[in-house]
Amino acid sequence: MSTTKPSLPKGTRDFGPIQMVKRNFILSTIKETFQKYGFQPLETPSMENLSVLMGKYGDEGDQLLFKILNSGDFLKNVDKETIDIGSKGILSKISEKGLRYDLTVPFARYVAMNHHELNFPFKRYQIQPVWRADRPQKGRYREFFQCDADVVGTDSLICETEIILMISEILDHLKISGYTIRINHRKILSALASVCGGEGLENDFCIAIDKLQKIGKEKVLDELKTKGFSASKLDSIFPILESNEGIPAILEKIEEVIAISEPGMEGLADLSKILDILNKYDSKFSNLVIDPSLARGLSYYTGTIFEVTLDDGSMGSLSGGGRYDDLTGVFGVPGIPGTGFSLGVDRIYDVMEARDLFPEKTSETSQVLFSFFDKESQDYCLPILSKLRKAGINAEIYPDLNKIKKQLAYADRKNIPFVIIVGDDEIKSGEVTIKNMISGEQERCTIREIVSKLKIPS
Amino acid sequence: MSTTKPSLPKGTRDFGPIQMVKRNFILSTIKETFQKYGFQPLETPSMENLSVLMGKYGDEGDQLLFKILNSGDFLKNVDKETIDIGSKGILSKISEKGLRYDLTVPFARYVAMNHHELNFPFKRYQIQPVWRADRPQKGRYREFFQCDADVVGTDSLICETEIILMISEILDHLKISGYTIRINHRKILSALASVCGGEGLENDFCIAIDKLQKIGKEKVLDELKTKGFSASKLDSIFPILESNEGIPAILEKIEEVIAISEPGMEGLADLSKILDILNKYDSKFSNLVIDPSLARGLSYYTGTIFEVTLDDGSMGSLSGGGRYDDLTGVFGVPGIPGTGFSLGVDRIYDVMEARDLFPEKTSETSQVLFSFFDKESQDYCLPILSKLRKAGINAEIYPDLNKIKKQLAYADRKNIPFVIIVGDDEIKSGEVTIKNMISGEQERCTIREIVSKLKIPS
Repeated sequence: MSTTKPSLPKGTRDFGPIQMVKRNFILSTIKETFQKYGFQPLETPSMENLSVLMGKYGDEGDQLLFKILNSGDFLKNVDKETIDIGSKGILSKISEKGLRYDLTVPFARYVAMNHHELNFPFKRYQIQPVWRADRPQKGRYREFFQCDADVVGTDSLICETEIILMISEILDHLKISGYTIRINHRKILSALASVCGGEGLENDFCIAIDKLQKIGKEKVLDELKTKGFSASKLDSIFPILESNEGIPAILEKIEEVIAISEPGMEGLADLSKILDILNKYDSKFSNLVIDPSLARGLSYYTGTIFEVTLDDGSMGSLSGGGRYDDLTGVFGVPGIPGTGFSLGVDRIYDVMEARDLFPEKTSETSQVLFSFFDKESQDYCLPILSKLRKAGINAEIYPDLNKIKKQLAYADRKNIPFVIIVGDDEIKSGEVTIKNMISGEQERCTIREIVSKLKIPS
Repeated sequence: MSTTKPSLPKGTRDFGPIQMVKRNFILSTIKETFQKYGFQPLETPSMENLSVLMGKYGDEGDQLLFKILNSGDFLKNVDKETIDIGSKGILSKISEKGLRYDLTVPFARYVAMNHHELNFPFKRYQIQPVWRADRPQKGRYREFFQCDADVVGTDSLICETEIILMISEILDHLKISGYTIRINHRKILSALASVCGGEGLENDFCIAIDKLQKIGKEKVLDELKTKGFSASKLDSIFPILESNEGIPAILEKIEEVIAISEPGMEGLADLSKILDILNKYDSKFSNLVIDPSLARGLSYYTGTIFEVTLDDGSMGSLSGGGRYDDLTGVFGVPGIPGTGFSLGVDRIYDVMEARDLFPEKTSETSQVLFSFFDKESQDYCLPILSKLRKAGINAEIYPDLNKIKKQLAYADRKNIPFVIIVGDDEIKSGEVTIKNMISGEQERCTIREIVSKLKIPS
């Protein structure tokens, strides 16, 4: 057989053992928190019909979908003339399926297909890869994980409150400090747009405001003026958008400006109620702010919106989400509202790596390696190894007859904290020598002593 | 926006909460066992370059690969004339990537790309979906999970032995009884083929023998005779292939027949050593048999091979694997031998479902639902809910103001074992009522009492 040069498609990654153990530490923290709040897991197939995916992410999204060639003779519906209609025209003849682009559309598709059987309010979480044919660059991959949780079938603001609680519980558990949870409300943004003479232009308002951090006040103002917003009214609301004031003060200022808008005041009331419910949970939040400039790109949000940013500005948002009033209308099932949020697992990984927050020991690595001088001492190890595993200790034996030095190097590279060494002396005394790989200390132990030494208290 | 009929691609499945919780029970048992034996997780991308995938699974496999259309203008290298060359010829111009077909080729690609950095012997496990454009039918999907563990970079028979230990530990932990672990050795099969006049025809021999259960002795004999095997010699070895004898007897019988073959005797010695090592682990195996008719289809195995079947014959193998002497040669990195096995997660799921083996309670469902009569009693619940979660109890509150009956129905459908009910009486007494959803019993408790009642001992 001829040989192939091994290669990886651009924009994709292998996750070796070191990365996997770290990533699993993050994911298991997230899953445990979701479960503590009554969310249940869901997984949907990697491929969806293009009819389900296309048209849901705008023209650019349609371009970025990975499409799968029909199997078998995919050219059977294509003739020479068809080729004239170009890539776009021929696509529907040779491809029916695509890889999922996010977790929201597949979730909506699932809810629409199963709404008669689901137990509403339905609380699901979903952690799966998604694919985008974007140009790969640092920190941007063509395959990456999304991690979403949503409650659908209820308008209760308890859902928004519990999202705030979950975000802070997850980040605190991961020991990520110095973050701010920003909240705002779409109805407040709409009211602000109206106040500035942009009735019905909420989307343009949100798109512009969303760029405030990135392109600065002047350019945002220019963009809004071009769209027809009133320059003087914009000047009057900008101090609010840029305010760093505490919660009671900012709420008052927003009210002053939008008091004339009934929907705007509803949005404000929602935020007040969320703060009120948070207090009832008996939770103190010093890192929650109301940020009227928070817009979130997605136009399908209709209520409260969230975003979590690091105070040191070292990267984009770690989490974001919001309330929407119609998850499944596009699939012919109207009237299912919900609230959801998403955690940026890759970014959380990067922060934890930069701040050295991953724990040294995890249940995913071996606690001990058995090493030995010869065949006889290797045999002597086997029943002891078996005993440790029965006691719930992750343990392994070096499989080959190699120099002790090589066996120790193996343990060291695999971050195994203890090595048991067995030779003639140990066999004679019925004991073993145990070496602490971090301190370098060695001691003789009976087998019973090792079990209690190595057992991690659960 | 026009509406789309929601649909799922043929051969794919959603995994809703009930299936996910069951599947996770299986997967976490498997992962914990792998980790107990020193295996570490690896994940590779869903898409691989077609140059890596093509030619590794035979012509049929190439057909069954899902191919991904190049992004952007995928027709840019195609002209009208090209279309004459048909699906096969045009493929390389419009597609460079495909979805992974199994976990072995991506693992080999990973080892070949990283062999300078890996810590050998390298023990990895990998649990990920694979895709095959097969005709969907009952129990056969186009997207399904594979679950593999391999040790590469060592010839030690300790690896084979530990695979047997892991298989039995996993199945025992899942409470699957009535299974048999069959082992055989490729060198024994080669020797048997030679003995029957089929020198160099081991592959034909294995392919025919593999069908013994399915098509019966007569047809297998016919097939082998057509290939040129000696009828009389075949008659002399068939009693061994069909024997149900215990280990010492079958070993003796095999030896009688293949004693003239040096490699055959090496294979036999390997099996004896594995049995010997198993004894040293102090493990009793009543369900291990040596089955000289076990062939396993894959031609890349070169040593011991395994298969696990249910004694009631209710389905195909639950697990299989073996030793190979060259994982990465095809990628230009020769000399890396290994042993691996694979667990059939879908089949294990089906057996457990049929035998009702899934546990009722898992850490993935809420332990308690808070229900209430009105807004005031809902508010009263919030700090108690917060306290339970802080004590590590999975708990949720019904978010809407609805009839108690509806709230209880929600808990019932979600299999939540306890419901806390709060109304005016409870608020006055500072207690709560707790209802056991299985027995129907209700009692009044203080908040401290609930915590100890609901806490699952870890």
